[in-house]
Amino acid sequence: MKQSQLFTKTRKDAPKDEVAKNAQLLIRAGYIHKEMAGVYALMPLGLRVMNKIATIIREEMDSIGGKELQMTALQDKKPWEVSGRWNDEIVDNWFKTALKNGTDIGLGFTHEEPLTNLMKEYIRSFRDLPVYIYQLQTKFRNEARAKSGVMRTREFLMKDLYSFTKDVASHEAFYEKAKQAYVNIFERVGLGDRTYITFASGGSFSKYSHEFQTVTDAGEDNIYVDEKKKIAVNEEVNNPEVLKELGIKKEDLVQKKAVEVGNIFSLGTRYSDAFDLKYIDSEGKALPVIMGSYGIGLQRLMGTIAEVMSDENGLVWPKNISPFQIHLIALLDKEGKEGKVGVAGEKLYKTLTEKGIEVLYDDRDVRPGEKFADSDLIGIPLRVVISEKTMAEGIVETKDRKTGEVRKIAEKELFVL
Amino acid sequence: MKQSQLFTKTRKDAPKDEVAKNAQLLIRAGYIHKEMAGVYALMPLGLRVMNKIATIIREEMDSIGGKELQMTALQDKKPWEVSGRWNDEIVDNWFKTALKNGTDIGLGFTHEEPLTNLMKEYIRSFRDLPVYIYQLQTKFRNEARAKSGVMRTREFLMKDLYSFTKDVASHEAFYEKAKQAYVNIFERVGLGDRTYITFASGGSFSKYSHEFQTVTDAGEDNIYVDEKKKIAVNEEVNNPEVLKELGIKKEDLVQKKAVEVGNIFSLGTRYSDAFDLKYIDSEGKALPVIMGSYGIGLQRLMGTIAEVMSDENGLVWPKNISPFQIHLIALLDKEGKEGKVGVAGEKLYKTLTEKGIEVLYDDRDVRPGEKFADSDLIGIPLRVVISEKTMAEGIVETKDRKTGEVRKIAEKELFVL
Repeated sequence: MKQSQLFTKTRKDAPKDEVAKNAQLLIRAGYIHKEMAGVYALMPLGLRVMNKIATIIREEMDSIGGKELQMTALQDKKPWEVSGRWNDEIVDNWFKTALKNGTDIGLGFTHEEPLTNLMKEYIRSFRDLPVYIYQLQTKFRNEARAKSGVMRTREFLMKDLYSFTKDVASHEAFYEKAKQAYVNIFERVGLGDRTYITFASGGSFSKYSHEFQTVTDAGEDNIYVDEKKKIAVNEEVNNPEVLKELGIKKEDLVQKKAVEVGNIFSLGTRYSDAFDLKYIDSEGKALPVIMGSYGIGLQRLMGTIAEVMSDENGLVWPKNISPFQIHLIALLDKEGKEGKVGVAGEKLYKTLTEKGIEVLYDDRDVRPGEKFADSDLIGIPLRVVISEKTMAEGIVETKDRKTGEVRKIAEKELFVL
Repeated sequence: MKQSQLFTKTRKDAPKDEVAKNAQLLIRAGYIHKEMAGVYALMPLGLRVMNKIATIIREEMDSIGGKELQMTALQDKKPWEVSGRWNDEIVDNWFKTALKNGTDIGLGFTHEEPLTNLMKEYIRSFRDLPVYIYQLQTKFRNEARAKSGVMRTREFLMKDLYSFTKDVASHEAFYEKAKQAYVNIFERVGLGDRTYITFASGGSFSKYSHEFQTVTDAGEDNIYVDEKKKIAVNEEVNNPEVLKELGIKKEDLVQKKAVEVGNIFSLGTRYSDAFDLKYIDSEGKALPVIMGSYGIGLQRLMGTIAEVMSDENGLVWPKNISPFQIHLIALLDKEGKEGKVGVAGEKLYKTLTEKGIEVLYDDRDVRPGEKFADSDLIGIPLRVVISEKTMAEGIVETKDRKTGEVRKIAEKELFVL
């Protein structure tokens, strides 16, 4: 994409009411736009990052047998009354509204109820199991406080997968596969090093659930990390009994601030009992389906990455989710776009693009200092400069956004990066 | 995808309260699930169709310079008060709700207001124009009546593009390009033959707007078609003055029922005036930006295709948006999946898939009659049968879903379809 055609502009300052670093940087660099507290639109750069994250998540969910569908935001209250979660005293973050005829409806903050209800039409016998269903779908949560930028928002894209299995053994086998898929996702988006599988309380069916917690001072959670074992426990389960069961010594634990970027949860028969979701086994017996749920909030993930991969000059995207791979910058000569550098820059942009490399091409007629500052702020992994000077030397100058390393290389070396 | 792993099942009957043919067929075939009146979830088959439609639309919008972003559903009321459209007496299909602190918010039914408001941050000079912005985003409309299946729903994906240009001439040039892009879209999804550019009233800025109307008895609109000229007028503008201006003779017009599958509209300065969205021209003068809006509802498009491309046995998808290109059906022998046919079917499925052909493989151990009925209902363009009989002959049997034509061909002919 040519930067002259990218309508967003970088900003010196974020809106005054924006206190979170992640949102400040993402707004200043033109990735998101704040509509109101806790509600952010995705600008073209932000949408590209989200699409990359979504693709990684889809690949991992497909690889463990997930089937994608898309439920609705508008929620009939009946299934929620069945589970008891329609009540605002039980669930405190509903957005509710009404049809013209006065019927109350809600905006889905999760989808256990409607999906369990729906699966009653499709699950009849053991032959229909297991089934793993996921979606990338917009959730609405009426958060009382929304001060963590895109890490806690009122409207966000969530990947939620729900597993339906016939017995505890097959549930547990899938749960372990899902856990590994989550490890893969956080590794692929660049958070592997600082993201810990964290034991949390599990509800009535299972002793533990698992959170994926990314260590950052911007986190709202406290976790207790065993660095050697590469696992953690959250505050709920940080007690002698649990530590003993997990083989963790209290003295090995270090308290850290963290963000919950994912969680996986064994639901057991909570929803299948409520909705009478049963299957007929090979001996003709009706048995309740065992369920699990597995969630990742995509904006939160993007925000967490912005928090932990940034420096005083701006964002520092990992290659896998950067909106572009190369930020090509032409330092135009006196003739502007029609000059020697402009023509060569345009040609290089075209060549790279034709080779399938994603390039943001700064073809604007503005000062070099402004181009470099914008490039640092936007945070694409590799900056490539073409100028009268580099052309005289027959090279281009690259700068690694993360390490700052500057290199002079032949243009054609870019093609095999 | 293997049909044994597609969790949806075909149904003999649609829900009793479902009166529209499009929704009846889409529900029975497992493309959608009715959550409540006017609210439908997309099952895996339906999501695949929607993704294909979305890809075609994105390609056409990108080709005319559209930049994709994603606005939010939750709407701050302030911009809507600026335009006067927050009032329920002016806009009768708002869904409204409130934040925990009591602040009223709405669910976006369109996005002129927030986008015009947002563009004030980015449009300053003539150098920032033109800019064409689009999104594929979920709209919410509190329809009093929702009886046309997926053709009029309370929650749906919409492609909305907004153009920002510096003068009327550049607006009109883009408007014509957008019109052609719309023609391309309806052609590519298979509705070209029966979709008419239809003159409609244009508001205060422009004499006409244009609807894209697809002729079908299921339509809620009446249009008046000049078959020779391949254009139409809607009821609003079907009067002597307009017909004269368009060079249409009254006696050439035929009244037809139709569905509005798209519309394009010159907004002029209605929103730029309201929001004081100006740019500085090359002489330093501040001028209002000229706007246009261009919409397509994706569920309505899918529903219209289901209405007009179906027969008594089910859906008949055009190739470009069918969820799969081939419905491969194995008529298993006595040994079931492990038998000769099952093994050969599995191998053919793998080969086709590896060649990038999208195949739904009916590997289920059910009666041939059930497989054929399901295949007709699901409506994939080409059915391919492999059985003991076809294997003995060294061929596969294909059936064109649309024409019914049956052919015996060598397996390898499938690879070059």
